[in-house]
Amino acid sequence: MTGMSTDPIKEAKTQIAEARQNRITPEMHLVAADERLDPEEIRAEVARGRMVIPANPRHTNLHPIGIGIAARCKINANIGNSPTTSSLKEELDKLDVALKYGADSVMDLSTGGEINRIRDEIIRHSPAPVGTVPLYQMMSLVEEPQDLTPEIILDVIRMQAEQGVDFMTLHAGLLHHHLPLVERRLTGIVSRGGAIVACWMSFHQRENPLYTLFDEILDICRKYDVTLSLGDGLRPGCLADASDEAQFAELDVLGELTERAWAAGVQAMIEGPGHVPLDQIAMNVERERQVCKEAPFYVLGPLVTDIAPGYDHITSAIGAAVAAYHGAAMLCYVTPKEHLGLPNLEDVRQGVIAYKIAAHAADVARKRPGARDRDDEISRARFAFQWNRQFELSVDPELAQIMHDESLPGQEYKMADYCSMCGARFCAMKRTKTANSRK
Amino acid sequence: MTGMSTDPIKEAKTQIAEARQNRITPEMHLVAADERLDPEEIRAEVARGRMVIPANPRHTNLHPIGIGIAARCKINANIGNSPTTSSLKEELDKLDVALKYGADSVMDLSTGGEINRIRDEIIRHSPAPVGTVPLYQMMSLVEEPQDLTPEIILDVIRMQAEQGVDFMTLHAGLLHHHLPLVERRLTGIVSRGGAIVACWMSFHQRENPLYTLFDEILDICRKYDVTLSLGDGLRPGCLADASDEAQFAELDVLGELTERAWAAGVQAMIEGPGHVPLDQIAMNVERERQVCKEAPFYVLGPLVTDIAPGYDHITSAIGAAVAAYHGAAMLCYVTPKEHLGLPNLEDVRQGVIAYKIAAHAADVARKRPGARDRDDEISRARFAFQWNRQFELSVDPELAQIMHDESLPGQEYKMADYCSMCGARFCAMKRTKTANSRK
Repeated sequence: MTGMSTDPIKEAKTQIAEARQNRITPEMHLVAADERLDPEEIRAEVARGRMVIPANPRHTNLHPIGIGIAARCKINANIGNSPTTSSLKEELDKLDVALKYGADSVMDLSTGGEINRIRDEIIRHSPAPVGTVPLYQMMSLVEEPQDLTPEIILDVIRMQAEQGVDFMTLHAGLLHHHLPLVERRLTGIVSRGGAIVACWMSFHQRENPLYTLFDEILDICRKYDVTLSLGDGLRPGCLADASDEAQFAELDVLGELTERAWAAGVQAMIEGPGHVPLDQIAMNVERERQVCKEAPFYVLGPLVTDIAPGYDHITSAIGAAVAAYHGAAMLCYVTPKEHLGLPNLEDVRQGVIAYKIAAHAADVARKRPGARDRDDEISRARFAFQWNRQFELSVDPELAQIMHDESLPGQEYKMADYCSMCGARFCAMKRTKTANSRK
Repeated sequence: MTGMSTDPIKEAKTQIAEARQNRITPEMHLVAADERLDPEEIRAEVARGRMVIPANPRHTNLHPIGIGIAARCKINANIGNSPTTSSLKEELDKLDVALKYGADSVMDLSTGGEINRIRDEIIRHSPAPVGTVPLYQMMSLVEEPQDLTPEIILDVIRMQAEQGVDFMTLHAGLLHHHLPLVERRLTGIVSRGGAIVACWMSFHQRENPLYTLFDEILDICRKYDVTLSLGDGLRPGCLADASDEAQFAELDVLGELTERAWAAGVQAMIEGPGHVPLDQIAMNVERERQVCKEAPFYVLGPLVTDIAPGYDHITSAIGAAVAAYHGAAMLCYVTPKEHLGLPNLEDVRQGVIAYKIAAHAADVARKRPGARDRDDEISRARFAFQWNRQFELSVDPELAQIMHDESLPGQEYKMADYCSMCGARFCAMKRTKTANSRK
């Protein structure tokens, strides 16, 4: 009997552990209010692992969110410097812009200098959950991937958990016997974390340490309620590699790790591709759902074509909207700078807006409570020629007004029953009213 | 027997009439070569009305295209001035930009001054088929919609046909008894042509003259092989109005008019919405296919949310990609300036590129012959770090290079095996090669 009371899993205070004990946490109440859902429904979703609430108690200024099929589709913005580019100030500006335009979470993917300090500042500034890929910091402590040791791996994960990171991407599902499958690919491994792990395994001819250390990792995650974002190190990097054996072999392992996380009282979500032709997206979402028992699917885009570097916020917003419509729970944005360089502030803005559009379109299509209200309100304002109201309701009010005012800048045009697109004589909405009033 | 030889329908030289006589025209041969299809397949598709080749013999510098489910998905760019904005020079610049970035056809929607001259110049300059909405020019000849007469209507259509217009949008399916259905809508009628016709019917309390004059219109179209683009005057202007009774009542009439066009030896395609939630797009495409007997579906977007004026090239590219994947044959672009003002040159560029992406993504998803070749080639260049080749294969080579060079401008970086996104140390593709070479 004393054995039971000291069982660390039973004692766990993670959201999933609490939910399974039939307790509704303050975080669940907040999520329920934001989602206009019943707190009991949130609890039930978290209990069965179909929703995660990444909420590390050390992230004290956090406003928690629920990520799962029952909730509004979320979007994540990746920020962080690279060894060649950017500074703390720039990264905090990116955080502000990402939050302003509607990012629900941010990942600090810094790989350049001052990794600890940048992450610390981002966590302190962000009311949104903050995620990381701890492998990047681990790499700052060694020369080459093969130099990573179990100590370094667990120390960095623990250190970041203590710092308040809410969710962590760990590429624990990419196994040694998957490596030959990669050789058949057009673009190999395109996940930075996946590539590091692959190098380690290839050098040592041993199993992925994130996999062999998974129990120890779960202990840390449980202690700080860090949500696992099970990374897809073998996500395809081009259409040609999509839905291949390598991708799905890793997904099978992620399904196994999901169950181990749940059994350990740890929340988990699953990362997904990447680059997927439009006709394979629904299948990919469905396959994740089956293999990973409905754990929330967190997809990167996917891009539906490879031919548009510079416009990959668009190529991927198409895939993201379709993935979310079919059931993806969170969308990791892609900026216009993808494949070309580190995103700057404007790229972050463009990426967040494109993804806000994709996620919202999916919410409307899935008929989530109240999802279409803002669409209807802006349409009403449009039909009433309330230009200022229309700008105000837009995802980017400043741009909407600038575009309108480009041709008709005067204040008098803010009440005009037409714009420069069709002009007064050809405005269909104006004529509708004339036609209606005659009857 | 002499009666038969002077039957104007039997004598018709339109593509559909020729196809039905089992003749493969030079235009069909050209389309077959471009589409990598058999000329006989093109003929068969045109004969059954499932493909149109808008090719007015008076458009002498035309390079014909095939629009239909068997062919690559096409994109149309609307250009033309409005009463408040733009000039001939600007419109010709828009034409050049639209063609440069891949528009397959252009519509001159000028409603401002110099309508005839602008159209004439556009036709002379454009190797792509040119479409119009003749109602706009009709309106330049009268004060109010109710002043339109059968003479004006037929004269303008004939005059434009003589000028070499390849396809014309005519809102012939919006009938008098549909008008009450519009009153229930949030944004009424948003088609300029539809609104003009509605005003006419409402004033005169009589049937749509484009409908009552349809046989005369068909005579003109047959003579000049003008392809009818049966306009959807009742297309929804917001998500709330999508797939409503008004929209589908008009669609039923378009189905009837399609069969009348075919019987008269005239090519026809069907215009579609506009604003449609993601979950209703497949249904809309399927419904058009059934009601209009597989006549090519030419959709405007559709936008999948109303909340993003300034970004409607993105909201609509999402809908367009999905519509094309489900079978739409041509996508009418929407620019970022939609709902806000007349597009300028940069808006045209952004609109065409977004739609090139949408159409291409659908072609890949539909597994059209060779559709993915360019994706694979650019992916190969990416994996080989051939930066210049990657730029060259992009939809917008200049932008791709500018974005890349923003952080790593030097010539030495054009062969570097990394970019500023991840830096040398974190490039996954670089590491893949290291891992592979070790085995």
